Amino acid sequence: MRYNFSEMVDRRHTGSIKWDVRDNELPMWVADMDFRTAPEIVAAIKQKADTGIFGYEEVPAAYFEAVQHWYATEHDWAPNTDWMRFVTGVVPALSSAVRRISHLGDNVLIQAPVYNIFYNSILNNGRHVLSSDLVEENGTYSIDWTDLEAKLADPLTTMMILCNPHNPIGLIWQLADLKRLAELAAANHVTVFTDEIHGDITDPGYGYTPFAAVSDAAAMNSITAVSPSKTFNVAALHAATLIIPNENLRNQVDRGINSEELAEPNAFAIPGTIAAYTQGAEWVHELNATITANKQLLTKFVGKQLPKLHVIAGHATYLVWIDCHEITNDTKVLCDHIRQTTGLYISAGEVYGGDGHRCIRINVACPAERLEDGLNRLAKGVASFK
Amino acid sequence: MRYNFSEMVDRRHTGSIKWDVRDNELPMWVADMDFRTAPEIVAAIKQKADTGIFGYEEVPAAYFEAVQHWYATEHDWAPNTDWMRFVTGVVPALSSAVRRISHLGDNVLIQAPVYNIFYNSILNNGRHVLSSDLVEENGTYSIDWTDLEAKLADPLTTMMILCNPHNPIGLIWQLADLKRLAELAAANHVTVFTDEIHGDITDPGYGYTPFAAVSDAAAMNSITAVSPSKTFNVAALHAATLIIPNENLRNQVDRGINSEELAEPNAFAIPGTIAAYTQGAEWVHELNATITANKQLLTKFVGKQLPKLHVIAGHATYLVWIDCHEITNDTKVLCDHIRQTTGLYISAGEVYGGDGHRCIRINVACPAERLEDGLNRLAKGVASFK
Ligand SMILES: Cc1ncc(COP(=O)(O)O)c(C=O)c1O
Ligand SMILES: Cc1ncc(COP(=O)(O)O)c(C=O)c1O
Repeated sequence: MRYNFSEMVDRRHTGSIKWDVRDNELPMWVADMDFRTAPEIVAAIKQKADTGIFGYEEVPAAYFEAVQHWYATEHDWAPNTDWMRFVTGVVPALSSAVRRISHLGDNVLIQAPVYNIFYNSILNNGRHVLSSDLVEENGTYSIDWTDLEAKLADPLTTMMILCNPHNPIGLIWQLADLKRLAELAAANHVTVFTDEIHGDITDPGYGYTPFAAVSDAAAMNSITAVSPSKTFNVAALHAATLIIPNENLRNQVDRGINSEELAEPNAFAIPGTIAAYTQGAEWVHELNATITANKQLLTKFVGKQLPKLHVIAGHATYLVWIDCHEITNDTKVLCDHIRQTTGLYISAGEVYGGDGHRCIRINVACPAERLEDGLNRLAKGVASFK
Repeated sequence: MRYNFSEMVDRRHTGSIKWDVRDNELPMWVADMDFRTAPEIVAAIKQKADTGIFGYEEVPAAYFEAVQHWYATEHDWAPNTDWMRFVTGVVPALSSAVRRISHLGDNVLIQAPVYNIFYNSILNNGRHVLSSDLVEENGTYSIDWTDLEAKLADPLTTMMILCNPHNPIGLIWQLADLKRLAELAAANHVTVFTDEIHGDITDPGYGYTPFAAVSDAAAMNSITAVSPSKTFNVAALHAATLIIPNENLRNQVDRGINSEELAEPNAFAIPGTIAAYTQGAEWVHELNATITANKQLLTKFVGKQLPKLHVIAGHATYLVWIDCHEITNDTKVLCDHIRQTTGLYISAGEVYGGDGHRCIRINVACPAERLEDGLNRLAKGVASFK
């Protein structure tokens, strides 16, 4: 390995939201990794800092070319740079698109259990959440197509938020599923916002498929959001990109992000992202190998020591979703118990909706040494539960 | 001088919006200075960059204490830290407050000529611009109180945007004016958003008065926005602070900035601002001396060489407002002519509303050597006009 993914970085008392915990506690909840980002990004930021000039700046062509290069080389898809817009984050852009594309009182379709903040983006803007819940069977989740089709056909459903790959279940959507979804959405005049922030973090050999790449129907009816944020652990870089092949849709969204001041980069967002996307590939490949090893470690540990817990076998994200229904249907109580008795702080699944109330989510993006500590605490907490 | 305000920094081809001009052109338009920021800010940013960790972070108490310290030591006002909220910029916060505090179709009162972006924040959100134009007399501007009172009394007027000090005329509002304004606004149930972004840039000996400091009526009925952005030339740091003494108003605005994702700092906003507000005073004092000298240079030059132009004598901002009515009532034509014949790029006043169509705005925040070049171009352009 060229990069170091085993350094036990001490993040206590640094203002980190993840690490705002008591001294004996171990946080493995929010989607924020315990690894330092790629040194190439740090170098680019310091180079920019050295200029001492942080005035109003335009987004240079090199930025969009870097995004294109990354998707071409990492994901076999070379989106046109004209389709792209810089935004300060995926969630800000999603909220803006909800306001711009759907109307007050409309339904926005999601697939629960899903990233909890999607609910905020919908509800805070006076729209209704309509979920076509994913169905768990044999350790994985799938779409209930009859239900999904009926909900897309509701005239009040004007927008859908796809999580590709899917947080928290770690699922990489299959090409056939994405194609079918694209057709149904287009046929029912439902615009798809596809959040692909987790697309770079996949097990080696298991690439994800960008939604807009699957068909013309998908491309012309979608807003794709990507970002180095999760991939390189740079949430506070405040950089993301919207990719919108459809010109009219692009103009609509563009108006929204501009009048809501989401289209202007801070001084470090551009150089940081360019460095990530042009010099960061090897760092990500090593990161992915590290995360895969951590997921295997966790799966093996749970299989042996916690046979009543069932790990959902996802090939994406560093978030592991575990079905706990054999021990409880209310994992909030379980998570509280685990935190109180062992200090391990993980996410109870209820906030993600659907069958989340019986599941937990564990963030394994940390050195293996720290993960082992977490797993031992998990075993202790589960053993003493009830 | 401890700091260098005479370095001729070359900003061409750096992505700067101000300097996106042809090779022979000299930009003295947008409010962005040609000085490198305080080295203390650069050092703080580099220190943060070196941590390599840019995850989700909370705003620390030290940030709010730094804001309080700055206002206490520089402006004789120590706002309570509980009244403060971090925001990513003054304009984003203003737009959010317009959406949150006023209703669709309401009037938002401004005082033209004023910062052009205020119009966008109002119009983009479906509110109406209602201006109580400032009145020019004897080289300065004042409020038409009868007009202002009538417009505040209109039940459809629910919000007012005060520019304190006032861009583009460089005026520092007098205590008595602010007090009277506060009483009228409160009596008419008009919430005042006071944009104090230019408050730190004043001629030595001419401090500005924070609106919320003038009376209880002012404090309890206002949203104050401050930022190191103009002061330290760090627009792209994306850091500003709202100060709202009234608890209910604060909660309302807080909800808006949170659901619009304007309340989360990027990784460098916090350390950069803390460095500015705790270590930057001397840099600002030297900056102000430099700007005052530049304004004097310009005023003397115009008085001698361009007797038909009348400099408005403002003691704040590095933007100089010049009345050109003796030579034209349409300074867009004049500015186009100056740019085409001499390469000097200044702002025509029409975008600021009111009597702006007969005025120009010149940004003098640059080394004196560059300003002299600009003044010579101005004289040449005016001489050959018409
Ligand atoms: C699916 C998904 N989208 C978006 C985000 C956050 O994106 P941003 O920080 O760019 O708003 C997260 C963070 O966990 C996420 O999991
Ligand atoms: C009066 C005024 N307010 C706000 C701004 C911009 O503030 P921000 O960049 O924090 O949105 C400017 C910039 O020129 C200004 O003159």
